[in-house]
Amino acid sequence: MSNKRVWLFREGNATLRDLLGGKGANLAEMTNIGLPVPPGFTITTEVCTEYYATGRELPAGLMEEMTTALADVEKDLGKKFGDASNPLLLSVRSGAKFSMPGMMDTVLNLGLTDEIVDALCKVSDPRFVYDSYRRLIMMLSDVAYSDKYEHISKHDFEHLFADLKKELGVKEDLEVDAEGLKKLCEQYKAHVLKVTGKDFPQDPFVQMKEAVEAVFRSWNNDRAIVYRRKEKIPDEIGTAVNIQAMVFGNRGDDCGTGVAFTRNASTGENVVFGEYLMNAQGEDVVAGVRTPLEIADLQKANPAIYQEFDDTCKKLEAHYKDMQDIEFTIEHGKLFILQCRSGKRTGPAAIKIAVDQVNEGLITKDQALLRVDPELLNHCLLPVIAPGTKYATIAKGLPAGPGAATGIAIFDSERAAELGKGGLGQNVILVRAETSPDDLKGMLAAQGVLTEKGGMTSHAALVARGFGIPTVAGCSEISVNAGKKEFTYAGGTIKEGDLISLNGTLGEVINGSVPVEPPMMTGEFGTFLGWADSERTLGIRTNADTPEDTELAIKFGAEGIGLCRTEHMFFEGERRPVVQRMILAENDAERKAALDELLVFQREDFKGIFEALKGKPMTVRLIDPPLHEFLPSLASLIEEVAVAKASGKPDAAKEELLHTVEGMHEINPMMGLRGCRLSIVFPQIVEMQTRAILEGAAAVIKAGGAAKPEIMIPLVGHVNELRFVRERLEATAKKVVEEQGVAIPYEFGTMIEVPRGALTADEIAAEASFFSFGTNDLTQMTFGFSRDDSDKFLKPYVAQKILPGDPFESIDQTGVGLLMEIAVEKGRKVRPGLKMGICGEHGGEPRSIAFCNKIGLDYVSCSPFRVPIARLAAAQAAILASKGGAERDK
Amino acid sequence: MSNKRVWLFREGNATLRDLLGGKGANLAEMTNIGLPVPPGFTITTEVCTEYYATGRELPAGLMEEMTTALADVEKDLGKKFGDASNPLLLSVRSGAKFSMPGMMDTVLNLGLTDEIVDALCKVSDPRFVYDSYRRLIMMLSDVAYSDKYEHISKHDFEHLFADLKKELGVKEDLEVDAEGLKKLCEQYKAHVLKVTGKDFPQDPFVQMKEAVEAVFRSWNNDRAIVYRRKEKIPDEIGTAVNIQAMVFGNRGDDCGTGVAFTRNASTGENVVFGEYLMNAQGEDVVAGVRTPLEIADLQKANPAIYQEFDDTCKKLEAHYKDMQDIEFTIEHGKLFILQCRSGKRTGPAAIKIAVDQVNEGLITKDQALLRVDPELLNHCLLPVIAPGTKYATIAKGLPAGPGAATGIAIFDSERAAELGKGGLGQNVILVRAETSPDDLKGMLAAQGVLTEKGGMTSHAALVARGFGIPTVAGCSEISVNAGKKEFTYAGGTIKEGDLISLNGTLGEVINGSVPVEPPMMTGEFGTFLGWADSERTLGIRTNADTPEDTELAIKFGAEGIGLCRTEHMFFEGERRPVVQRMILAENDAERKAALDELLVFQREDFKGIFEALKGKPMTVRLIDPPLHEFLPSLASLIEEVAVAKASGKPDAAKEELLHTVEGMHEINPMMGLRGCRLSIVFPQIVEMQTRAILEGAAAVIKAGGAAKPEIMIPLVGHVNELRFVRERLEATAKKVVEEQGVAIPYEFGTMIEVPRGALTADEIAAEASFFSFGTNDLTQMTFGFSRDDSDKFLKPYVAQKILPGDPFESIDQTGVGLLMEIAVEKGRKVRPGLKMGICGEHGGEPRSIAFCNKIGLDYVSCSPFRVPIARLAAAQAAILASKGGAERDK
Repeated sequence: MSNKRVWLFREGNATLRDLLGGKGANLAEMTNIGLPVPPGFTITTEVCTEYYATGRELPAGLMEEMTTALADVEKDLGKKFGDASNPLLLSVRSGAKFSMPGMMDTVLNLGLTDEIVDALCKVSDPRFVYDSYRRLIMMLSDVAYSDKYEHISKHDFEHLFADLKKELGVKEDLEVDAEGLKKLCEQYKAHVLKVTGKDFPQDPFVQMKEAVEAVFRSWNNDRAIVYRRKEKIPDEIGTAVNIQAMVFGNRGDDCGTGVAFTRNASTGENVVFGEYLMNAQGEDVVAGVRTPLEIADLQKANPAIYQEFDDTCKKLEAHYKDMQDIEFTIEHGKLFILQCRSGKRTGPAAIKIAVDQVNEGLITKDQALLRVDPELLNHCLLPVIAPGTKYATIAKGLPAGPGAATGIAIFDSERAAELGKGGLGQNVILVRAETSPDDLKGMLAAQGVLTEKGGMTSHAALVARGFGIPTVAGCSEISVNAGKKEFTYAGGTIKEGDLISLNGTLGEVINGSVPVEPPMMTGEFGTFLGWADSERTLGIRTNADTPEDTELAIKFGAEGIGLCRTEHMFFEGERRPVVQRMILAENDAERKAALDELLVFQREDFKGIFEALKGKPMTVRLIDPPLHEFLPSLASLIEEVAVAKASGKPDAAKEELLHTVEGMHEINPMMGLRGCRLSIVFPQIVEMQTRAILEGAAAVIKAGGAAKPEIMIPLVGHVNELRFVRERLEATAKKVVEEQGVAIPYEFGTMIEVPRGALTADEIAAEASFFSFGTNDLTQMTFGFSRDDSDKFLKPYVAQKILPGDPFESIDQTGVGLLMEIAVEKGRKVRPGLKMGICGEHGGEPRSIAFCNKIGLDYVSCSPFRVPIARLAAAQAAILASKGGAERDK
Repeated sequence: MSNKRVWLFREGNATLRDLLGGKGANLAEMTNIGLPVPPGFTITTEVCTEYYATGRELPAGLMEEMTTALADVEKDLGKKFGDASNPLLLSVRSGAKFSMPGMMDTVLNLGLTDEIVDALCKVSDPRFVYDSYRRLIMMLSDVAYSDKYEHISKHDFEHLFADLKKELGVKEDLEVDAEGLKKLCEQYKAHVLKVTGKDFPQDPFVQMKEAVEAVFRSWNNDRAIVYRRKEKIPDEIGTAVNIQAMVFGNRGDDCGTGVAFTRNASTGENVVFGEYLMNAQGEDVVAGVRTPLEIADLQKANPAIYQEFDDTCKKLEAHYKDMQDIEFTIEHGKLFILQCRSGKRTGPAAIKIAVDQVNEGLITKDQALLRVDPELLNHCLLPVIAPGTKYATIAKGLPAGPGAATGIAIFDSERAAELGKGGLGQNVILVRAETSPDDLKGMLAAQGVLTEKGGMTSHAALVARGFGIPTVAGCSEISVNAGKKEFTYAGGTIKEGDLISLNGTLGEVINGSVPVEPPMMTGEFGTFLGWADSERTLGIRTNADTPEDTELAIKFGAEGIGLCRTEHMFFEGERRPVVQRMILAENDAERKAALDELLVFQREDFKGIFEALKGKPMTVRLIDPPLHEFLPSLASLIEEVAVAKASGKPDAAKEELLHTVEGMHEINPMMGLRGCRLSIVFPQIVEMQTRAILEGAAAVIKAGGAAKPEIMIPLVGHVNELRFVRERLEATAKKVVEEQGVAIPYEFGTMIEVPRGALTADEIAAEASFFSFGTNDLTQMTFGFSRDDSDKFLKPYVAQKILPGDPFESIDQTGVGLLMEIAVEKGRKVRPGLKMGICGEHGGEPRSIAFCNKIGLDYVSCSPFRVPIARLAAAQAAILASKGGAERDK
């Protein structure tokens, strides 16, 4: 711990964010580069930690250090804190390492007392003085007392103000004159005395102590905790406190205040962008009581100030080399900068600014690449609600599939398929309690999907992201009644046919329609991702099962398919009955007949994808899910059979089917007869698939194209499983090559998705041409978490910080990651240069991508819409790795 | 590969089992210690491997090597193979490294041809000569031709013999005279010519070549393959072939043959034990055509021969230092030893022999301990079918719970509980298609359990072994119809109330009752296990949930409880409704009321067990299974609700319950809301359990006893889970200690049963006082095998040798074991001396115990009936480890 607890602004700099907080470090930095910052000092974050460590006591000696620093400020301004003749007023603000806008407390006008107010009234506008005083009483009481006493929050003081305005017969604050505000101050003070039993402090140093403590306490108020959780900001870093001389934008018409960005935060355009108000305080701009003016207007109204402000913006950008978000105040014609920080921006703006700044020579390409949060690229790819649209959200769920969609609510998949894409062409939003593979048809026909249950990795969410369907999942604020064809929410009911909209990017459900715009693919976007490609060493593939998705992914930059799931093809319309016939076949002849039918379908599937790939490689996973997934559910059959029997009309065929489904029922299907186990017990299916893949490839090759099939055997835990399946399929493959008479450059490899597969990767590598990490299943088995059932405990786990985050979103590097590292090391020891990738959902998540880069995978594979994100994340990982492996800053 | 393919008996010795097979090595050894072994030679196992490697061709030069060896034999005996004037006859026998009795082929009397038979008849009894010839024709044809031709097996020749006897009007073989047998030989030869199109070979060397090839081929006949699979003998080691001069026990009344053990194989008594017949061949003794005589009778009949034989037995035991199984022949008053091998024996015999031999100074205690297969101790512990009882098995299943039981067949658990133990006290066998936790009551009331489905680790099997209930599981040869209260088997139907018996040790189902005897606990048993205890370093604990089981386990030598499953206590009679009330509680008050009731039960449970333990430690696992396991099944509720609705009498309460159960339903409950996840989401249950454990301990301590509770938190995958639960339970524990006012030496630890728990054992060790490996779940998750569903693929996996064995029976040392090693190393790095045990089913399995010893666990824990087995297995592991880690020989 540093000994110095209190830092004057001129003593600090921008590198001291850990100690001084973001705001304090920036105030120091701005002070030192000569910007007009009101003087002040910062109490370090370490004091906050000490405050909590010692049971909420300010450390001994702190007040003395503050007094010393204060003397410096006083000397600088020629004013004195608590001196009625020439009083210095102060602001007290929080400032953590990471920005937490509005979450913690602020106190302004500190240093006003009855005596000083009286004195000031003689030299200043009394209305301004009493207005400042009443704000101080309200703010300090709110932050310093409301956690001990009831009825002393801002809200209570506003009640008193409202009563007074009523009494005076006026509506607006500004209509209350100095006399009125004086009376209000008396009422405020009386209220404080009544509630707390003590007078409002008349010693400015007591005010200061109470304000500092209140700011420290606000580090742990509810909204700050919630915000930190959401933004993954550690709880233990604490906040600094900034104490600064007040400047006033509300002392007359030559005063004003405003907020501005050095460039347009929405489009990225290189012009100052913001709002201001003359004769006003900062909160007036934010509160919307008066309509603020565009910053451009200042140029006409006050060219000199504008010029000074514009120069300051340029100076700040040149200094920080990033777009800045600035708060400023004009006091009697003099400009003060109160705060600056890196400005939040949309995805398109982020990219344009980064590209422009490189072109302007402000930053390097590496800096540009590191500056853009990969997740922001989502904004550039998906249909969005037209910027600026005002809309009311009726419920919020999980942002499961980004993008916006508008359509009529439909509650069953059949109906959605009839009405939607591929049917009557209406815009449909499919609303379900939860979705199952049965809903695929309806989902594909819908513009968007809304489910009441299921998490970010639920079926609905996986399909949504895979197919780019805007989706809000796990929306527990609605209650779906499929029977009645309606859902209810807090404020009402939506029935079939009602128009609703979804903002899948934010998880919002909207009543009625909103204007939706197509994604932007500007020139800067291409340039920027081009830079990313030249930096990254990881390959980027996509998870795709159709020619359409494949084409889209290639447009987005995919270099091949890392995961083509063959079973999705089995669910589609006319195939499902054939698949069921295959499963229910009573003899080999029946089964073969069904498989022969499926072969025709699958061969065409693969041919189409190979054509779309134009010679890029495709990893095809052989059938993985348990066969009972293709049959009707056990529960529905039990019910149907029971009802038929009870009604005196027993249904023998249904009973037979029930018997079969019961026989196939599994208690834990995730760990049952699936993956390569299926291939071993029912080899005919994968023999058919192998044939279909290679015949599809052969057709493309014969037509003059190229095709690179990589056949992937899933769920291997023991080398013998792979050897057994591979030997049989190699035989089929050789036969097809012979029949077709063309060379097909096929390979056989395996998924590493069972812990034992990772642990024995050396044995397995001897039989595999490539590995692909299936981190979804690997995470399930390493933790013993069923993804389908984990909602009930994963949410509380993350909320209570038992886990740092959802391991299905970002790879658990300590546990699952260790297995991956073991597999990489053991695999390459036996087969140097073994090709390795990842095809779980994690393949599109930036921190997981950085991890894959670190452990030396060859590529990541993700859904088409995440391909650009992965390209950027991979570039960032490569740049940071070359710098010694630091993490991207928040 | 050794260059020497053919070894004369005098060239080999007992250490060459790999090369010469067990029989060949022993013949060599016996020859060299001067026993009267007919001379001969052995073709090595390597030749068998070469035979298969070269597509079933005898290697070039082999016949020449055999001829050279044969010359030595000829010289020794003064006879010549194929010489009509003084012919040498040979036997050709298989002999693999591990004994496979009767599985492979044998040919006797090799070297007889028409010409030699004619010549021999002039100097020997013609009946004997033709009898020998007809046997040769039959045996050689059977082994050499029957895989290429139909109707040339032993069976076909026996038909011809039967026809002849009918024609001659006689019944017994011995009634057919020389003339008849001569005719039979002609018929046999004609049959060979007819079927194969070739004459029976008249060249003795052709006979020899065909016989040798046939023996090699018999290595891969069906029954040999099945036997190897069962006995876990590798397929690739091949068999040797032993060619030996014939001696005849059927050349007259001064000839004979017999089989004997050097000690009693059933009781272990130190007297020669066996049977013989004069004027007979070996197969006559085995076939049971004539009743053999006790070996003791030989002493009276022929004291000189008996003395020589008894001396030979003593010489053999002194040489091999183990009880031997001997085949002998007397030819014209001269004794020959044809074979000796370590004799198979029952568990009680094995122990008595081992202890006696130590007392006789023949072997050391270590040798005695290594010699007894731990699994044999099962015979010493369980009720058995009275030895010598003849019974007919109507079906065979898996030997899921050892021991024998007799009772009436009952097809539902309620009825079994009414009639059986704790009810009317009848002897009941519970017969179910499969069992679920609902059946526990019925199982506990039954003498034995029979299920149609489920494997060695099914619910029924686990409960059976845990509670020592003789059980046959997975008996697919029966078909249970619970509705009709009957089961059918190949030969008939058993209805409710019919008497049946089970031999759980062998998996046999018997129609009617058999006499059942209590287990034997002789003095030698105690002595032997005492030796084991002084050798072993592993502690032995038991898995027990009741005072009765605890007492039993302590009697068997347990040093504490390694796993007390608290949820078993929740299933019992009057508790189940309280548990359901606790789960279905709609508010905290209702839940607390139910928990308060359960507290009373659980406190008594633990008090009783602590009393039984008399101060030995008890590891108690907090509640582990998902709560829905305590509620009615979803399927049954769906059916009931549907039926009620369809019948026009909807049942609102049932519908409500269905809704709740649906809400709790999990797709993969194994990886759902269970273990410590439950403790985190519903902390009240484990707080109650902690209180119950410590109050139970306090009661015992206050009464002057001792109690050492070790509270175990299950399913931990992340250190924070353990920290979270532990902190809360430590608070409860401190409170109880304070309330009770006595010191309770409690500890908190965790199970390592999730792969991530093992991978991050260093982090977890910081929070745990002990680790207990839950290898059942660890195996499930490491392989991704649901134990409940694995039957469908594990059986084919083992059959097709994809896995070397069922990993739920013996620890998979490569995968699961690697995780355990990682956990041990990481855990002890952070907390040296960390106490570690294993409480999965593997804790009672000898190979797994050896592995636990190797990786340095402190103890193993197993069901009471496996405690003695574990004591011996642990001793063997310690002895072998001190010798450098060799495995016990088969």
